[in-house]
Amino acid sequence: MVDDKIMPFEQLDKAYLDRGLYFGDGVYEVLRSYDGRIFALEEHLRRFANSLAAIEITGVDIADIRPRVTGIFEKAGIANAKIYFHVTRGSEPRYHKGGKDLKPNFLLTICGLPDDTKAKTNGIIVSTYPDLRWKRCDIKSLNLLPNIMAVRDAAKKGCDEAILVDDKGFITEGSGSAFFAVRSGELCVSPLAANILPSITRGFVLRAAGDIGMKVVEKQFTTQQAIAADELLIGVTTRDVVPVVKFDGHIIGDGKPGKYTNALACEFRKFTK
Amino acid sequence: MVDDKIMPFEQLDKAYLDRGLYFGDGVYEVLRSYDGRIFALEEHLRRFANSLAAIEITGVDIADIRPRVTGIFEKAGIANAKIYFHVTRGSEPRYHKGGKDLKPNFLLTICGLPDDTKAKTNGIIVSTYPDLRWKRCDIKSLNLLPNIMAVRDAAKKGCDEAILVDDKGFITEGSGSAFFAVRSGELCVSPLAANILPSITRGFVLRAAGDIGMKVVEKQFTTQQAIAADELLIGVTTRDVVPVVKFDGHIIGDGKPGKYTNALACEFRKFTK
Repeated sequence: MVDDKIMPFEQLDKAYLDRGLYFGDGVYEVLRSYDGRIFALEEHLRRFANSLAAIEITGVDIADIRPRVTGIFEKAGIANAKIYFHVTRGSEPRYHKGGKDLKPNFLLTICGLPDDTKAKTNGIIVSTYPDLRWKRCDIKSLNLLPNIMAVRDAAKKGCDEAILVDDKGFITEGSGSAFFAVRSGELCVSPLAANILPSITRGFVLRAAGDIGMKVVEKQFTTQQAIAADELLIGVTTRDVVPVVKFDGHIIGDGKPGKYTNALACEFRKFTK
Repeated sequence: MVDDKIMPFEQLDKAYLDRGLYFGDGVYEVLRSYDGRIFALEEHLRRFANSLAAIEITGVDIADIRPRVTGIFEKAGIANAKIYFHVTRGSEPRYHKGGKDLKPNFLLTICGLPDDTKAKTNGIIVSTYPDLRWKRCDIKSLNLLPNIMAVRDAAKKGCDEAILVDDKGFITEGSGSAFFAVRSGELCVSPLAANILPSITRGFVLRAAGDIGMKVVEKQFTTQQAIAADELLIGVTTRDVVPVVKFDGHIIGDGKPGKYTNALACEFRKFTK
């Protein structure tokens, strides 16, 4: 029964029997292009392979995914595009363990991605939310309800992103972004662990920091330390480096994007050329 | 792009744009019938309403869901049926916050449910797995990947169900069931909390215990305590009370379903008449 229409299983499109829908039994990636070039494709494919392996989805060859991504990107002809794709374990009538003959499902979407110049110029405001996520956030899975709850809460407060805080008061990361603080000229970020997504953008931001001579401190920090920071910023594929100027109502620095953040954004942009 | 077929968004069935698929942004229920009567419909509908409210899916009236469930049950004419249904926040191109005009999607499946007499007569064997789930397991959401990982691990070990163990060594519940121990004639079970699903079957098992004069102890217990228990059992909608005769390779009691478990199963059956 789909809404109020009744039909036999055989007539259902396989999307209605997708284990991605019933269980979130799949993993995904989001990529972008800058001016006609896909950014960090190999890094995303490598992470995707790790996610697939972590939840033991087999029968998917990265060598088959790569030409699908590049092929559709060429065909679409969108210079600045957002590319999303996922693989789920397959379709079958709902059954937790999963049948033996499951064939993974592949879904990819591509659309234009306008540059968010307003956010980059003025900075964004963020609010905190408890980190309710599971214990394997290093796997980029389709189980994103806690992230959705967080970002919807932020939106209600007029905020652009939710920053997740664990039981001990430490910031883990944004609901859909990596989160950084600048303190005394040092770039602070949570260390990678099972509760942190190994963000591709995070990696490039750290590289940018090294290139401009900023020391990187990979250590957990609290909301109090974030409020007291000189600058805050997030990193996310679709918008790269975005300054954060307000955190839970507290103005950060002088309320404008800081010099280190701007320098990181500028350095980051070089990677994309 | 669905597998290798490319099409515009407009031609996609809405199932491919379901927030249930991208985020697990939905909640579900599983019910059963015994001999032509749906069991505990109101209890399931009440829990479903709680789940919807917890993730703030609005625009769904339980008064509209009830006749869909009873209507399809009558139409299907399956005396012993399993009924699954879920509601997701709606379909749209992937967007975390969700658009304002989202219309929730409803999906229901019904099929025959043969009685698992073998499991009930001989008991099942179970293995443990870390409880990797999120912090709101009291919401019956579509984010079930950690449950899937657990039950797939159990299946690899030749086990029927995975029993989840938290960081401190305490058992929370089964990957798809409530878990109980009998010690000195007392029925032990984890207390309801944010890390436990308020299982309908659990409620009826506790009621059955009261009816046969068993004391109920709602307190966390460890894997060591489970192994040392006189009897172990699980409770799950699709199979009600099932004895557990082996736990992580350790034989429980004399390796046969115990007298308290059998008494609980017998008492439970009365509720279903």
